[in-house]
Amino acid sequence: MKIKEIAELINGEIFGDFEYEVERVSEISDAEDGALIFFFDEKNLQEGDDRIKGIAAVVPEGIEECPARSYIKVNDPRLAMIKILNHFYPNPVSSFSGVSKNTHIGDVDFGSDVTIGDFTVIGDGTIIGDRVEIFPFTYIGHNVEIGEGSRIYPHSVILDKTIIGKNVIVEAGAIIGSSGFGYHRVEGRYIPIPQVGRVIIEDEVEIGACSMVDRSTIGATVIRKGTKIDNNVHIAHNVQIGANAIIMAQVGIAGSSTVGDNVVIAGQVGISDHVHIGNGSHVAAKSGVMRDVKDGEVVFGYPADNRTSMMRNEAYFRRLPELFKRVKALENLR
Amino acid sequence: MKIKEIAELINGEIFGDFEYEVERVSEISDAEDGALIFFFDEKNLQEGDDRIKGIAAVVPEGIEECPARSYIKVNDPRLAMIKILNHFYPNPVSSFSGVSKNTHIGDVDFGSDVTIGDFTVIGDGTIIGDRVEIFPFTYIGHNVEIGEGSRIYPHSVILDKTIIGKNVIVEAGAIIGSSGFGYHRVEGRYIPIPQVGRVIIEDEVEIGACSMVDRSTIGATVIRKGTKIDNNVHIAHNVQIGANAIIMAQVGIAGSSTVGDNVVIAGQVGISDHVHIGNGSHVAAKSGVMRDVKDGEVVFGYPADNRTSMMRNEAYFRRLPELFKRVKALENLR
Amino acid sequence: MKIKEIAELINGEIFGDFEYEVERVSEISDAEDGALIFFFDEKNLQEGDDRIKGIAAVVPEGIEECPARSYIKVNDPRLAMIKILNHFYPNPVSSFSGVSKNTHIGDVDFGSDVTIGDFTVIGDGTIIGDRVEIFPFTYIGHNVEIGEGSRIYPHSVILDKTIIGKNVIVEAGAIIGSSGFGYHRVEGRYIPIPQVGRVIIEDEVEIGACSMVDRSTIGATVIRKGTKIDNNVHIAHNVQIGANAIIMAQVGIAGSSTVGDNVVIAGQVGISDHVHIGNGSHVAAKSGVMRDVKDGEVVFGYPADNRTSMMRNEAYFRRLPELFKRVKALENLR
Repeated sequence: MKIKEIAELINGEIFGDFEYEVERVSEISDAEDGALIFFFDEKNLQEGDDRIKGIAAVVPEGIEECPARSYIKVNDPRLAMIKILNHFYPNPVSSFSGVSKNTHIGDVDFGSDVTIGDFTVIGDGTIIGDRVEIFPFTYIGHNVEIGEGSRIYPHSVILDKTIIGKNVIVEAGAIIGSSGFGYHRVEGRYIPIPQVGRVIIEDEVEIGACSMVDRSTIGATVIRKGTKIDNNVHIAHNVQIGANAIIMAQVGIAGSSTVGDNVVIAGQVGISDHVHIGNGSHVAAKSGVMRDVKDGEVVFGYPADNRTSMMRNEAYFRRLPELFKRVKALENLR
Repeated sequence: MKIKEIAELINGEIFGDFEYEVERVSEISDAEDGALIFFFDEKNLQEGDDRIKGIAAVVPEGIEECPARSYIKVNDPRLAMIKILNHFYPNPVSSFSGVSKNTHIGDVDFGSDVTIGDFTVIGDGTIIGDRVEIFPFTYIGHNVEIGEGSRIYPHSVILDKTIIGKNVIVEAGAIIGSSGFGYHRVEGRYIPIPQVGRVIIEDEVEIGACSMVDRSTIGATVIRKGTKIDNNVHIAHNVQIGANAIIMAQVGIAGSSTVGDNVVIAGQVGISDHVHIGNGSHVAAKSGVMRDVKDGEVVFGYPADNRTSMMRNEAYFRRLPELFKRVKALENLR
Repeated sequence: MKIKEIAELINGEIFGDFEYEVERVSEISDAEDGALIFFFDEKNLQEGDDRIKGIAAVVPEGIEECPARSYIKVNDPRLAMIKILNHFYPNPVSSFSGVSKNTHIGDVDFGSDVTIGDFTVIGDGTIIGDRVEIFPFTYIGHNVEIGEGSRIYPHSVILDKTIIGKNVIVEAGAIIGSSGFGYHRVEGRYIPIPQVGRVIIEDEVEIGACSMVDRSTIGATVIRKGTKIDNNVHIAHNVQIGANAIIMAQVGIAGSSTVGDNVVIAGQVGISDHVHIGNGSHVAAKSGVMRDVKDGEVVFGYPADNRTSMMRNEAYFRRLPELFKRVKALENLR
C-alpha cells in the first residue's frame, strides 16, 4: 500500500516521498525498508531520529520536521495507528470459521452468521446473537444471552443466566458467573450461602484473560457499557461497575462494592467490600481502598487516601532516619 | 408459596398478612409484588423502610416492628435465607445430566449416580465416588480419587495422584496438582527440582475459580476439612492448611508454610515461605506475612505485625508532615 | 534399589549399612523403613535426629556424623535429590500417549514422536517439533511454532503466531498470546488499539499455571532462555524479560517494561509500565516498582527503593509512637 493511500485513510497531510510502499507496521527497533512507524510526541521522535531515514512515519501535527523518508502529519496519531492496524491486520486472532459439529449444543436460539468452534458446550435456553464468534472449548451454560457481534475466546466459561451485551469481548480463560464467596458460620463450620443471582455485562465491555466475575447472591453483579477489564481481575458477587471504567490487571473488588463511571483503577489494587468508588475517580496501583472514594478523587496507598497527601507522607517516611537524628540532637541540648 | 409455609420452613414467627404469596427472593432495590427480602440487622431495616410496604420480609427477633406487609421473625436471618434459597433455587448452576459418551475415560472406578459432562478426560486408576458431578471440559489425571457428592465445575484440572474428599466443590478453571516452583541454580542455570508429590483436599473444602494448588516436592500439599478458598488463590508446594479456614481472593501462600485451623486470611495477602500461621489468627487484607503468627493473633501490614500497633503506626504516618513542622519549630527555638 | 547403587548414581561416599534397600524418597515426617531422606544443612539434620535411626539419608559433605542407618555424603545434596527423584519418578504427571483422533487439527507440520491428547485444537500453519507432548484441551492457534521436547499441560491456550522454543514447559491453564490491554480514549469512550504482535518464548522457559503473557501491540513480547515463571503471573504487552530470571507467583509486569538477565522478582510484585529492571537485580516480595532498577540493585517497598534503606525506614516507622512522645516531651520543656 502506498504511503499516499495511507494518508488518505487517516486523513493526514503527507511530506517527503509520496510513492513509498508500506509493507508493514513496525516498532522503531526493527525499522527496515517497507516499514511504517508511529510517533506520539516529540520526545518519542527524537529518540528514533537516526533509524528512520529510509522509512515512513506518522507524526503529530505539532512536529515541524521529521527525518523520515515519508511522513504523515495527523491530529491524533494514536487514532491513525488504530485505523491503519485495523486495515493491515483485520483479524489478529483467527477463529475457526463455520459451525463445528463436534460440540454439545442444547436447545439454543442462534442468530445469523454465528461461528462455533470445536468442543463447545452450550446449554438449553441460551440465545446467541448475530455474528457472535465462539472459539473452541467455550462453556456456555443454560439460559445465557450473548448479544450480537460478541467474541468469546477459547477456554472461557460463562455460567447459567449470564447476560452479555453486544460487541463484548471475553478473552481466553475468563470465568463469568462463578459462585460468590459467601458463608455463614454456625457452630464452627461455614455453611455456604446459596449464590442464586447472575452476571450482567453490557455492550462493548471487554473482560481480560483469566478474569473472574462472580454471580450475585440475589440480583445481579453488573458491568456497565464500555468498561474495559484487564487480565486476572477478580470481581466479587454483587459488585456494580459503571460505564467506561478502566480496571487494570490483578485488581480485586470485594463483595457489594460499587464503582462509578469513568473510573480508572490501576494494577493490583484491592477494594474492600461495601465501599463506593465515585465517578471519574482514580485509584493508583497497588492501593487498598477501605472507604468510599469521592467523585473525581485521586487516591493512593493502603489504606488509600488522597494521593497528594499520601505521596507527601511517603516522602517524609523516607526522611525518618534524619528526623530521629534531629530529635536526638534536640534531646541532647536539654 | 405462601408466607405461612415459609415461616414453617424457617421455624419463625409470622406477623401481618399470613396469605401473602411469595414468588421470589429479591434484593431491596427491586422489591415488587411477590418479593421476599431479608434484613440482617436494624440499621439495614431502616434503610429499606419505604419500599417494603407491599412485600414480605424476614427480620431478626430483636426487631419490634416492621412496615412490611408480612414479616417473619427468626433467631438467625442468615440461616433462614440459606434455607429459603436452597428451597427456591435448589440448583443455581445446572449440570448436563447423565454420562456423556463424548469423553476420554480410562480404566476408572465409578460410584453410582455419577454425572460426567462432555469433553471430559479421566485417566487410569482414578476412583470417582457416588453422586459426583463432573462438568464438561474437566481434566482428571491418573490415580486421582474424588469423594462422594463432590462437584467439579467446567474447565478445572485435577492432576495425577490428587486425593479429593467428600462434598468438595471445585469452581471453574481451578488447577489442582500443578508443579511446585522449585529450582536449583547450578552454574547460572536453574535446574528444575522434580515435584513428585501430590495434593490432598479433605471433605467439604471449596476451591474458587482460577485458584491453584501446587503438588508438593515429596509428600503432599494438604487442605483440611471445611476450609473455603475464594477465587484466584495461589497455594504453593508443601503448604499445609488447617480445617475451617477462610482464604479470600488473590491470596498467595508460598512454599512449605502452614496455616492453622479457623484462620481467616483476607484478600491479596501474601504469606512468605516456611512460616506458620497459628490457629484462629486473622491476617488483614493485603498484608505481607514474613514471620510466624501466634494462635489468635490479628496482624496487618507489610511486614505484617500486631494489627493494633500497626494501625496506630499508620495513624502516626499520616501525621508525619505535622511532626516535621513541630521538630522544625523546636529547632528554631534553640 | 540398594543404597550403594544410589551412592553411585549421585557420586557420593557411603557410610553405615551398604545393603539398605531404598523403596521411596520421603519427607522426614513420614520416615519409615525403606525411606531415603535429604538434609541440606546441619541445622536441618539436628531436627531430624531421632526419627532417622532406621532409615537412609543424603547429607552434605561437611557433616561429621549422622545417626541414620545408612548415609551418603555428597557435595551438593539438592543436585543429588534432583538426580534421585528423576530416577525414581521419571514422570510425575503422565500424558495420554499417542496421537488422539478426537481433535481438530488443521494443516500442521508435526515432528516425530509427538503426543497429542484428546480434545486438542491446532490451527493451520502451525509447526510442532519432535517429542512435543500436548495434553488434552490444549488450544493452539494458527501459525504457532513449538520447539522440540516442549510440554504443554491441559487447558493451556497458545494464540496465533506465538513462537515457543525447545524444552519449554507450559503449565495448566496458562494463556499465551492474549490481547494486550491498550485503548485510546476518544470522546469519553475507549477505542481498542489493535494488538497485532505476538509472543516469543525461548528455550527452557517455564510458564506457571494460570499465568498470562499478552501479545504485543506491534513486534513481540519476549521471554528469553531459561527464565522460570511461577503461577498466576501477568506479563503485559511488549514486555521483554531476559534470560535465567525467576519470577514468582502473582507478579504483574505492566506494558513495555524490560527485565534483565538473572533477575529475581518475588511474589506479588507489581512493576509499572516502561521501566527497566537491571541485570542481576532483586525485587523483594509485594514491592511496587515505579522507576528503573540498576544492575545488581536490591529493592523493596512501594514505591520500591534500596532495600537496606527501606528496611531501616520500616523499623523507624514502627517507632513512630515513641517519636511523637519524645517530641511532645521536648515541647513541654519550652
